Amino acid sequence: MLKIYGDVKSGNCYKVKLVAEQIQAPYHWIDVDIIKGETQTPEFKEVNPTGKIPVLVTSAGKTLAESNAIIWFLAQDTHLLPKEQFEQAEILQWMFFEQYMHEPFIATARFIKIYLGNPASKQGELASKMEKGYLALDVMEQHLTSTDFFVGGVYSIADVALFAYTHVAEEGGFSLKDYPNIRHWIERVKSQKHFITLG
Amino acid sequence: MLKIYGDVKSGNCYKVKLVAEQIQAPYHWIDVDIIKGETQTPEFKEVNPTGKIPVLVTSAGKTLAESNAIIWFLAQDTHLLPKEQFEQAEILQWMFFEQYMHEPFIATARFIKIYLGNPASKQGELASKMEKGYLALDVMEQHLTSTDFFVGGVYSIADVALFAYTHVAEEGGFSLKDYPNIRHWIERVKSQKHFITLG
Repeated sequence: MLKIYGDVKSGNCYKVKLVAEQIQAPYHWIDVDIIKGETQTPEFKEVNPTGKIPVLVTSAGKTLAESNAIIWFLAQDTHLLPKEQFEQAEILQWMFFEQYMHEPFIATARFIKIYLGNPASKQGELASKMEKGYLALDVMEQHLTSTDFFVGGVYSIADVALFAYTHVAEEGGFSLKDYPNIRHWIERVKSQKHFITLG
Repeated sequence: MLKIYGDVKSGNCYKVKLVAEQIQAPYHWIDVDIIKGETQTPEFKEVNPTGKIPVLVTSAGKTLAESNAIIWFLAQDTHLLPKEQFEQAEILQWMFFEQYMHEPFIATARFIKIYLGNPASKQGELASKMEKGYLALDVMEQHLTSTDFFVGGVYSIADVALFAYTHVAEEGGFSLKDYPNIRHWIERVKSQKHFITLG
């Protein structure tokens, strides 16, 4: 059976859990608590040398890190990953956008607020992250003017990757009031079969 | 014919040019100068709304952004992308690692030094980027103790993605003196067929 190492509050880990549920793959979830330092122990670094979660271990014992690489692997030959090569590349384009222009700002703003308790010492960093996070939301809002989902008009792992931290962006202090396309897309994602909530 | 929009000094753009050369795909290169603001014009934002390069336009007129998504697309059905699904996922794992843990520190340190002229106002930011950049180099050095290339022991787009900014890390102030595995891997990459230099 698949093993997934993850923290239940992490959006990156949630991506993997959501995809595993939506493709109905049996898996064993192993809780790893970031705040307790459980990703930095020598034991965990045997599993993933970068000390990051999520991590997938296949039934053959092979290890894979990076949330978007894991959901790509799980989604092979399922309805969550179209077969057509250019559409697959577009899905990757949005997943790289998510890891480069979205997650480092929207997820980490939430991390500062929720995990670290929003300390005064982090307020300068938080302001900078919010400014850049809104730029990512602007790109998403614009793209969603002409389509229901990010690639090819159908729900795919590109939506999963972007949904994970967008739907909890308000926990990081972002307002989605001026982003109606994103809010409607969030509702469309939540209505997908076998959807589960974060946490 | 393929069109590639890029800045010749950018490692992300170099990835695309290197892969196009190594798969011997005919392409038309369109110079876009970041420092002159050419990625932020309304005309360029018609091509890519995020105002980032590189951008690929296919012969059918379809547009693709994000360097690693572009080289994934170009490398389909070539020797630069193995067919096996888990190896493909491992290649993505290293490409996401590159965009999340490597490029934001090693490429941007070089950007501060080479593009911005290493101004005094950026020295605090530079120190933080160098600390995190060395962590990425540590992960690469460790991985290369047991393999010649990043995935499956053969040269692939995972190596291209990581090579682009690693081989010019010294321009960002990084020393590779204590990274012999990385230095040897750089030489192996440079000896690949149809290799071209950055610039």
